[in-house]
Amino acid sequence: MGVRPRIPVAVLGATGTVGQRFITLLAEHPWFEIRALTASDRSTGKHYKDAVQWMQESPLPSEVASMVLLPTQPDSADGCRLAFSALASSVATEAEIALASAGILVVSNAGSHRMDPDVPLVVPEVNPDHLELATLQKFDRGAILTNPNCSTIGLVLPLKPLDDLFGVEAVHVVTMQALSGAGMPGVPGMRSLDNVVPWIPREEEKVEQETCKILGRLTDTGIDAAPVRVSAACNRVPVLDGHLACVSVSLRKTPPRAELEAAWRSFRGEPQTLALPTAPPLPVIVLEGDDVPQPRLHRGLGGGMAASVGRLRSCPLLDFRFVTLSHNTLRGAAGGALLLAELAVRKGIAGVIGADPRA
Amino acid sequence: MGVRPRIPVAVLGATGTVGQRFITLLAEHPWFEIRALTASDRSTGKHYKDAVQWMQESPLPSEVASMVLLPTQPDSADGCRLAFSALASSVATEAEIALASAGILVVSNAGSHRMDPDVPLVVPEVNPDHLELATLQKFDRGAILTNPNCSTIGLVLPLKPLDDLFGVEAVHVVTMQALSGAGMPGVPGMRSLDNVVPWIPREEEKVEQETCKILGRLTDTGIDAAPVRVSAACNRVPVLDGHLACVSVSLRKTPPRAELEAAWRSFRGEPQTLALPTAPPLPVIVLEGDDVPQPRLHRGLGGGMAASVGRLRSCPLLDFRFVTLSHNTLRGAAGGALLLAELAVRKGIAGVIGADPRA
Amino acid sequence: MGVRPRIPVAVLGATGTVGQRFITLLAEHPWFEIRALTASDRSTGKHYKDAVQWMQESPLPSEVASMVLLPTQPDSADGCRLAFSALASSVATEAEIALASAGILVVSNAGSHRMDPDVPLVVPEVNPDHLELATLQKFDRGAILTNPNCSTIGLVLPLKPLDDLFGVEAVHVVTMQALSGAGMPGVPGMRSLDNVVPWIPREEEKVEQETCKILGRLTDTGIDAAPVRVSAACNRVPVLDGHLACVSVSLRKTPPRAELEAAWRSFRGEPQTLALPTAPPLPVIVLEGDDVPQPRLHRGLGGGMAASVGRLRSCPLLDFRFVTLSHNTLRGAAGGALLLAELAVRKGIAGVIGADPRA
Amino acid sequence: MGVRPRIPVAVLGATGTVGQRFITLLAEHPWFEIRALTASDRSTGKHYKDAVQWMQESPLPSEVASMVLLPTQPDSADGCRLAFSALASSVATEAEIALASAGILVVSNAGSHRMDPDVPLVVPEVNPDHLELATLQKFDRGAILTNPNCSTIGLVLPLKPLDDLFGVEAVHVVTMQALSGAGMPGVPGMRSLDNVVPWIPREEEKVEQETCKILGRLTDTGIDAAPVRVSAACNRVPVLDGHLACVSVSLRKTPPRAELEAAWRSFRGEPQTLALPTAPPLPVIVLEGDDVPQPRLHRGLGGGMAASVGRLRSCPLLDFRFVTLSHNTLRGAAGGALLLAELAVRKGIAGVIGADPRA
Repeated sequence: MGVRPRIPVAVLGATGTVGQRFITLLAEHPWFEIRALTASDRSTGKHYKDAVQWMQESPLPSEVASMVLLPTQPDSADGCRLAFSALASSVATEAEIALASAGILVVSNAGSHRMDPDVPLVVPEVNPDHLELATLQKFDRGAILTNPNCSTIGLVLPLKPLDDLFGVEAVHVVTMQALSGAGMPGVPGMRSLDNVVPWIPREEEKVEQETCKILGRLTDTGIDAAPVRVSAACNRVPVLDGHLACVSVSLRKTPPRAELEAAWRSFRGEPQTLALPTAPPLPVIVLEGDDVPQPRLHRGLGGGMAASVGRLRSCPLLDFRFVTLSHNTLRGAAGGALLLAELAVRKGIAGVIGADPRA
Repeated sequence: MGVRPRIPVAVLGATGTVGQRFITLLAEHPWFEIRALTASDRSTGKHYKDAVQWMQESPLPSEVASMVLLPTQPDSADGCRLAFSALASSVATEAEIALASAGILVVSNAGSHRMDPDVPLVVPEVNPDHLELATLQKFDRGAILTNPNCSTIGLVLPLKPLDDLFGVEAVHVVTMQALSGAGMPGVPGMRSLDNVVPWIPREEEKVEQETCKILGRLTDTGIDAAPVRVSAACNRVPVLDGHLACVSVSLRKTPPRAELEAAWRSFRGEPQTLALPTAPPLPVIVLEGDDVPQPRLHRGLGGGMAASVGRLRSCPLLDFRFVTLSHNTLRGAAGGALLLAELAVRKGIAGVIGADPRA
Repeated sequence: MGVRPRIPVAVLGATGTVGQRFITLLAEHPWFEIRALTASDRSTGKHYKDAVQWMQESPLPSEVASMVLLPTQPDSADGCRLAFSALASSVATEAEIALASAGILVVSNAGSHRMDPDVPLVVPEVNPDHLELATLQKFDRGAILTNPNCSTIGLVLPLKPLDDLFGVEAVHVVTMQALSGAGMPGVPGMRSLDNVVPWIPREEEKVEQETCKILGRLTDTGIDAAPVRVSAACNRVPVLDGHLACVSVSLRKTPPRAELEAAWRSFRGEPQTLALPTAPPLPVIVLEGDDVPQPRLHRGLGGGMAASVGRLRSCPLLDFRFVTLSHNTLRGAAGGALLLAELAVRKGIAGVIGADPRA
Repeated sequence: MGVRPRIPVAVLGATGTVGQRFITLLAEHPWFEIRALTASDRSTGKHYKDAVQWMQESPLPSEVASMVLLPTQPDSADGCRLAFSALASSVATEAEIALASAGILVVSNAGSHRMDPDVPLVVPEVNPDHLELATLQKFDRGAILTNPNCSTIGLVLPLKPLDDLFGVEAVHVVTMQALSGAGMPGVPGMRSLDNVVPWIPREEEKVEQETCKILGRLTDTGIDAAPVRVSAACNRVPVLDGHLACVSVSLRKTPPRAELEAAWRSFRGEPQTLALPTAPPLPVIVLEGDDVPQPRLHRGLGGGMAASVGRLRSCPLLDFRFVTLSHNTLRGAAGGALLLAELAVRKGIAGVIGADPRA
């Protein structure tokens, strides 16, 4: 595959924290090649390195540093087959439609279109079949695919094998989310040091709704949301990366504890079967020990693309309790969207992208 | 009352973080006067200031600085009527019995005797009548009274008025607890910075059991634990002081949301009625706003003796959700034990302390 | 004095972190009474409580909460004799002149006019005589007095007694400054957690220049800057309040180490002599021990108005080394400006404020 | 080289933070192979994974996890040619002599023998010729080589090219050091959050003395310490990894600023010439920008083996000022010792290790 030309892509909203992660991941990607970067009016026309406040621990790739930032509009993506969107929701709503109308496959990390009835909201290991929903979209060749909210992803990955085998009825989740989830400048240092903020705007609603859509069933006319009752409480904690969550679940069938762990350990999805470049070997990693997972120690497991789970035990109210952790700007944002793009490219989306253009 | 002599007291385990808080609070107390300080073998014989690693923001009171540390045994408390215990549980089990056997009223913050059937486990606003349980103890004049775990206290304060009016059936609580709760040296800096530890040894069991005892009913033979199902998940976050908790509750009667808030706002307990020195004007403070309470901003409300609540809303699984915060080393430890001692002194405990010796 | 009417004052730029500190301190002040609050256009017309993001640990005083914010212009201060300025420098330059022209005594924490030749830059314990410089100002009744930069203050307090007794020739200072010094939103959480930023815009120049002006000599025509060579390197560390600095000094006379400590211990200034309300008993507190001062433990000493020093030892390059700490939003900002206002009121400034209007 | 057998090595004190870094680095090393791990009595006999509290972000290598910990004594290293010492100084003093006496080349990160007159204290880019000093040691085949203190290394790397070209006369350094430098448990979370501790036991003396030894001249009878006056003030800041330092230097020749930067940019040492496996391409990296280096963003440059410098400017007291950063557990500890071992192996030490056994 190495000899084929790489697919040209654009990154929309390239200077923010998620945009920076897209750039870091795409710089070394075997299939994709960054051809265009867009930003807000304040930055267009500047070299990327002069407009960005680079916050990644790996250095800014030199070939990206000198690219000129373009406005976020269709002609900026001329020659690109695919665009990764790290746009703010306020901008994404219209800009993504404009790009899809111009024939671009938009893979978006923004929240704007996630709950649109004809837009796939996909975690590749969980609901890859939902990609088909894009055929309902009215665009000529383009389409919009979406990646869930960062805290939804860390939740549905461990829920999926439980749902398949035992049926998930109810979920209670309390998150402790990292600062990077709020972007830059995000939460002021004065507000995050020696503190927890027990509220993240619109986050609880997103987790509650998106979980039901992702675990839902694809029908001819759309997605039947899963009949799972979800209660989410979301908190911002002074951690740089990695969203931790305490989860309680009720199951239709209540197996012995060991069967849940076995379900997680044997869980593989299409990304693993297809050996997609960004897929982690194990989507869910079960950690041994009383006090794990911990954000600083385990957020990087599976290249930041796995969910780590631990502390599985019975719950006095629901059936079981556990702790889950996922890297919010890798699996929960740029990495998740990239894996979704890889899935779309490999599987094809009828009428949108031909099956497996790289094969 | 100012002209009466103050009651001489001992502080057991005076060098730790809770011991330091006892000293800070007692230094200005109108009823009590520190007469003896005890510590482990390593420190006995030293001046307090030379043995302690003082971690309080207020200076070490000079009259305490030069006191000589004594071993934790009954004769160290000679002449004291009351002893505040900040002992580690491993030491407290036997030491507190020895002191009570010697006729001392031990007011303990240790976990050792909390669940003993004849030991009152009391939050003064919540179950002051449980003090009577001490009459079942076999000591001659002494007794053991206990203060709950730091995270239990912040939970039962807002639960109490709900239980009185609507009946609490089930509670799901996820805590985000401060570092000071682990004492000194406690959690290493390397483990707490940029991290959350999703486990605190034996903490979840304590919250689940203590809540039922405190909300239970006093009978002639002991406490009938309340039939409340409690599920607790406890996390250590990088915050200095203040335990935050996300709580969901099921109630027997489901009132409109406004009635819960009204119940909190009108809640007063015996400490308020009796105007005890350490009692906050309001035991539960309802905060307005989306993103409150926050540990750094609100842990000090009511002199660190109130629980702050916010974000009351319905829960898709149980009936209601809210966030509660309390100061773990004030209300949750030294301050709570001090308030308990004040209650015991003012009300008297039949056969143990005569009614209101200060009146 | 309690029966006299309090002096009506305005707070300019009342919603920022320094403005909030002014409000906290003035709410309980025996001499002053808040009559007007000003803010930027975005907030004028709103009630203070609706415009401010209150970040203080003490609650917002209720009488202030409902005050309506006014534009920062002279007629907003009608009826006020004095205005405390917490304005951003960009705004302060013109606004403070406009208020002084209208006959108001402006006591400013902004950097705009500090180095103006006719504007006193005063630390009340250090150079109270510099107040006279205001007589050179061209305003009719008004005047502008300034408080130094937050890191300058913690430096000149311990330097002053050394300069008086031994003559300071050279100073090398490396600061570790708290987040609150950058105001709100200030340093992003993502940039301050697990990090140090080794640069604060224009801070090093301020420390180097202001120190020489403050230690300078008042002449008929202005201030002769002190011939002290100062080298400052300023860093932002993840601390909420309290600027720490490692200082090395060269002295004209090199006394034994003990004489420096003695100089600090016996140091008193006019605020102490005059018993001004905000004056700490000791302007410089010498701490014993190897590892002090520390921001969290000692920033509050002397009500946040003292500088704490420790670790005095000889320096292989200059003569002596020590560590100094001061509270940057109390002594280093609002508290320092308030003490300056008290000094000006008590001493009077010829032609500007009559001597001691409160006496 | 890949077909040759790797050199068997032992890691002494393998469970601490530096020991863990040695294991991480050696697990993938092309020349060395871990054959033995030692620990204190409390841990000997246990499997490594059961005795260690693993704090690295990369997983514990599985082949190491099951190794049994041995006591720190010579026969534990049977069959090993080389031992890396991460021992505490108290233990290292005698244990390292015992191992060297048994014919082992001990490459030590401990402070015990650094200042011994016959022990090389080496930063491979700075004073590789000092390796010869080991020939003065009395051991039969073994020897002790030492790696400097973590904060010394980040200082001497940028000083070396300045010293070579312009002559360093005096150095004033104020460090802001990471928590990992104190090992585990190290600084309590309660002491490091929202705080700076302005003292690290014996650290300032180490920096002052080691710098002069490293920059000194090898003679037939030992090292002539460099006549550089060094003043060091060391602080512990809430950062996980990366020691930052504000440095002022006086030079014998005072070149234009640009020549200092040029000296850094062109600096290469023997590790670069010999292309040692752990050598960074550039030992000193000059960063552009006002506010760099920063620990979180730049500690990993050059694989954690480079010193980053920035903010070069003139100093009002000495000649120049700059900021330097190095990774304290990589370059400053395990990585630095590993590079030193590579140098010793490649160059040979007369009578101790034959020249280049791997060539």
